[in-house]
Amino acid sequence: MQFLSDNAASVHPAVWDALKAADTPDTPYDGDALSAALDDSFAQVFQRPCAVLWVATGTAANCLALAAMVPPHGGVVCHEEAHIEMDEGGAPGFYLHGAKLMLAQGEGAKLTPQTIAAVLDPIRDDVHQVQPHAISITQASEYGCSYRPEEIAAIAEIAQARGLRLHMDGARFANAAAFLDCTPTAAAGPVDALSFGFIKNGGMSAEAIVFFDPALADVARYRRKRAGHLQSKGRFLAAQLQAMLEDDIWLANARHANAAAAEIGTACAGRLMHPVEANELFVRCTPAERAALRDQGFGFYDWGDDAARFVTAWNTREQDATALAKAVASL
Amino acid sequence: MQFLSDNAASVHPAVWDALKAADTPDTPYDGDALSAALDDSFAQVFQRPCAVLWVATGTAANCLALAAMVPPHGGVVCHEEAHIEMDEGGAPGFYLHGAKLMLAQGEGAKLTPQTIAAVLDPIRDDVHQVQPHAISITQASEYGCSYRPEEIAAIAEIAQARGLRLHMDGARFANAAAFLDCTPTAAAGPVDALSFGFIKNGGMSAEAIVFFDPALADVARYRRKRAGHLQSKGRFLAAQLQAMLEDDIWLANARHANAAAAEIGTACAGRLMHPVEANELFVRCTPAERAALRDQGFGFYDWGDDAARFVTAWNTREQDATALAKAVASL
Amino acid sequence: MQFLSDNAASVHPAVWDALKAADTPDTPYDGDALSAALDDSFAQVFQRPCAVLWVATGTAANCLALAAMVPPHGGVVCHEEAHIEMDEGGAPGFYLHGAKLMLAQGEGAKLTPQTIAAVLDPIRDDVHQVQPHAISITQASEYGCSYRPEEIAAIAEIAQARGLRLHMDGARFANAAAFLDCTPTAAAGPVDALSFGFIKNGGMSAEAIVFFDPALADVARYRRKRAGHLQSKGRFLAAQLQAMLEDDIWLANARHANAAAAEIGTACAGRLMHPVEANELFVRCTPAERAALRDQGFGFYDWGDDAARFVTAWNTREQDATALAKAVASL
Amino acid sequence: MQFLSDNAASVHPAVWDALKAADTPDTPYDGDALSAALDDSFAQVFQRPCAVLWVATGTAANCLALAAMVPPHGGVVCHEEAHIEMDEGGAPGFYLHGAKLMLAQGEGAKLTPQTIAAVLDPIRDDVHQVQPHAISITQASEYGCSYRPEEIAAIAEIAQARGLRLHMDGARFANAAAFLDCTPTAAAGPVDALSFGFIKNGGMSAEAIVFFDPALADVARYRRKRAGHLQSKGRFLAAQLQAMLEDDIWLANARHANAAAAEIGTACAGRLMHPVEANELFVRCTPAERAALRDQGFGFYDWGDDAARFVTAWNTREQDATALAKAVASL
Repeated sequence: MQFLSDNAASVHPAVWDALKAADTPDTPYDGDALSAALDDSFAQVFQRPCAVLWVATGTAANCLALAAMVPPHGGVVCHEEAHIEMDEGGAPGFYLHGAKLMLAQGEGAKLTPQTIAAVLDPIRDDVHQVQPHAISITQASEYGCSYRPEEIAAIAEIAQARGLRLHMDGARFANAAAFLDCTPTAAAGPVDALSFGFIKNGGMSAEAIVFFDPALADVARYRRKRAGHLQSKGRFLAAQLQAMLEDDIWLANARHANAAAAEIGTACAGRLMHPVEANELFVRCTPAERAALRDQGFGFYDWGDDAARFVTAWNTREQDATALAKAVASL
Repeated sequence: MQFLSDNAASVHPAVWDALKAADTPDTPYDGDALSAALDDSFAQVFQRPCAVLWVATGTAANCLALAAMVPPHGGVVCHEEAHIEMDEGGAPGFYLHGAKLMLAQGEGAKLTPQTIAAVLDPIRDDVHQVQPHAISITQASEYGCSYRPEEIAAIAEIAQARGLRLHMDGARFANAAAFLDCTPTAAAGPVDALSFGFIKNGGMSAEAIVFFDPALADVARYRRKRAGHLQSKGRFLAAQLQAMLEDDIWLANARHANAAAAEIGTACAGRLMHPVEANELFVRCTPAERAALRDQGFGFYDWGDDAARFVTAWNTREQDATALAKAVASL
Repeated sequence: MQFLSDNAASVHPAVWDALKAADTPDTPYDGDALSAALDDSFAQVFQRPCAVLWVATGTAANCLALAAMVPPHGGVVCHEEAHIEMDEGGAPGFYLHGAKLMLAQGEGAKLTPQTIAAVLDPIRDDVHQVQPHAISITQASEYGCSYRPEEIAAIAEIAQARGLRLHMDGARFANAAAFLDCTPTAAAGPVDALSFGFIKNGGMSAEAIVFFDPALADVARYRRKRAGHLQSKGRFLAAQLQAMLEDDIWLANARHANAAAAEIGTACAGRLMHPVEANELFVRCTPAERAALRDQGFGFYDWGDDAARFVTAWNTREQDATALAKAVASL
Repeated sequence: MQFLSDNAASVHPAVWDALKAADTPDTPYDGDALSAALDDSFAQVFQRPCAVLWVATGTAANCLALAAMVPPHGGVVCHEEAHIEMDEGGAPGFYLHGAKLMLAQGEGAKLTPQTIAAVLDPIRDDVHQVQPHAISITQASEYGCSYRPEEIAAIAEIAQARGLRLHMDGARFANAAAFLDCTPTAAAGPVDALSFGFIKNGGMSAEAIVFFDPALADVARYRRKRAGHLQSKGRFLAAQLQAMLEDDIWLANARHANAAAAEIGTACAGRLMHPVEANELFVRCTPAERAALRDQGFGFYDWGDDAARFVTAWNTREQDATALAKAVASL
């Protein structure tokens, strides 16, 4: 019963079907019909025009989006525990040609206008200090917390006031949208670009960068090729995204994962380090308790010395979730 | 009857089977069993130790290999029509942090010790000029010509004499090895790293970087993550490579493509711009002749004003190759 | 009697005076009065608004100017023998983050609309090929040839038509302006930025980047600091530039150097590889002839096997120029 | 009476003399006799072999030194208030091609083995996290505190144990050496490279990068040119360094500045935020007190809301120091 991560979960049957269906020769790169239809498919989801590029990883999605917004001499405000800062092997430094990540704080790994201002205000407007050019937020956050639409709006406001672009790392955007139970448009808010994750949510190898400003997409297209991310059989990436959007499978999968997380969270509410607003749980428990859980067959990561991280996925079995809920309740 | 390119061809059934078989949860990234076994699988092919990394594109393979060999202030000698110079959107400039491609000439897009020396000799050994650090050759070349083992040895000799690393872009290495009818080891020669292509040859989205110097692989591992090329469900890439190596499918596929090319080449020997030593044909023909071929249902690219390029693939149907052979013979 | 190069010549007395006069404490970096007055001083020279940054080398001037014009995924058309391509140790690759130099041909190391088009026309407008963003020309060229105003206008026209920026490397702009005997504005033409050289012409350590588009200067200011080129005692660089502009010393110095070159060139007109349109001479002569000249005490560089390069400077003594003129006439 | 900064102070007479003496033509770049003698001159100072490169700024010195030590995918541990983090406009990101600064804490802007370990220990040894390659310390620190030889030794020990290079930003190395009253060798400790500052201490435009590992210098030489920092009349930079080393002017100047700072510090000991161990003072005082000091003619920077920063220089007049000492004593 694995709750280690959603990032290595199985591939959804609809994705398999779409992959097989795409196995006819077509124009290489992103010249195929499936890729060409992505803008429209996502425009339907977000009810506004967008330009969409597929890539193979969330790291590439985040970095290509930011590289289109931020010059090499600029900076990006992000949470000090953001994925781009902690877990991408320095990819932003590579893609943004040495631009600087400016680390802000915030509960649940979420930024607020106040914590953003705390980073921005001390920066002197001179050439000796790196100037900010964008803000990047994560929906849901590294701790599985979802920004409410009004929270995004408040951040967008400070972004606009300071002349900054706004990017959303949506590796688990589906889980946030499902949790918030609002439209995708509301869950994304007025961002300039969204890294929309599909791999953790039932895909095999395709994420989407959704640009709401087409000028950014025009730059990112060249950067994607330049980064070796323009796959020649791109139809197999587009097929995954199209399959997941069809009939809102992406939302159904996320709801399933969230429901499992919610069940477990309810069972150990007093131990939660963060509210469960997506498909991740950070649960205070002792090494002995963790050992006991592992003895019962549960797989998960330690989170420091005094906690465990559990992640549910689109294919978490209900009986496994229930079993874990019972197990944590009995600790 | 498509002869446009092999880069968008269908996926081999054995690859599909392997992909499906890999659809069980495993350790993410390259921690899965299939990825872990790659070094051994390729060591069997090359009969010597190697360290292997999967990536999603040939561009990424080439650039990660070269970035492990060449410092940002260095240079790479390559053919003026090499893929890294002409068709990778400036990716070497990105991955190598501004290192310089030093363009050499040579028949059939193949380098020789003489054309390499013609580039190297005029470079003054001072800081005002970029100093070479590596040579990159393409097997088979952009014009479908294959380096003979003794040709590679001669280039390796000049590389060693000048203190340069040697890289091989093997996007069509399989076709070269099949044409040369020698061991893979002989077809690769004493290179430091080989970008071993699988996608054009029946794969879906996986290429291999084969490092014969493990120190280079240690660097490339970090660079791969930093470039956003470490996919979380890496087992699906490893599975493709393993499937293609099994029973030497990679060689069988290449032999099939080569045979089709050879048949067509024999039929229009007098028109060939380059000897057919892999799966590409560059055939002199007038616009009217090309129009006639297209009227007969053949797809291909114009190659300048006076020639056409035909590419066969692992799945080119024999009757299509025969039909094209007849058609070009009748021009 | 040295004719090796102008780049290590002595410093003009007026520059020394200005340096000493600047030796009072002032605001650091470029906050001092001399630096602040540069825009106005150069605006008087060019009779139009400009934004001026001092830097310590021509390499930095060229690369900072180009970096403000060209994104990392773009390209710069320049002559295949341009300084940025041949002699700057790969600095454009560094400053432009891997952007590509696109090499064009032309007599006397001068570009023409035709040679530029020959580079631009074959570039497919797709992401697989680096797209051009700027053209860089050198006034006077590497071979001491000066662009006529109408030649620059023709190049500016193709730049505008193709949506490209235009940069001028003016390491010897003074010599070109003196030779052309026109206004500095005419000698520069409608470029977006000019690297205006002073060091070869009597300065110690200051060159000017003259931006005619202030938006480029705003970017370059950050890049200059980021490149470690914002000197804390910047008043000593500004002082050099101001001193050279005062009373048009820069033009007088260049006229002196040009006159010496002209005298020598007239004496060996039949041997000249290029017309003498600045302060450089490329003179066909045999190794024996060169040895004879050296025996007479003349210092110069060999230019390949069959020629010599002579460079005059602001401080070339008239008797030395006359002596060399006689010597080459007698060969 | 200026105590704003030492970075715009006048130039020492001996430097002027040396500059004038260097105004004869010599080999360009660093081929002149003065530049060629630098290794020996500094070897005498440090009593061990070293390879020395001049550059025009401390930012370039720091970044070229670090770029020779750290690959683009690596990291550098430094204090969170280090100059390379706070005041160099992102130059490390540029020169190190996106390598990461890893911010550590420490009293007085000095690192300790403990604070370094606190940064290093949580870094997982995997490709998802940037791995450290070097440590950079500042002597004297941003708060004018000097590392004792045993403190440097302890840091060198952790560097060696972890396989990290050690760099010292010595923008005010002279002041630290003067304060410590030990040999320069002891004040530098076993670092791999030292950015040895001269500009704040009486120079005009020359800093030295002192490499104790010649392999690093070999790389830095290419990088210096590539960064546009190889000045053609380099003899004027070498002359400054040689002049300052002659008769230990660098030490005498630093002693003078330190003495002034000590006098002022003694007069306001109770208000000091940090011990005075070089030529900087950070003095707690209210806005009203600062206004009062300014009314008396003292120039200085506010340091936040509740403090002032005073910097003495090699040419601070004794009466000015005494006046400030009295003024702060009377607050």
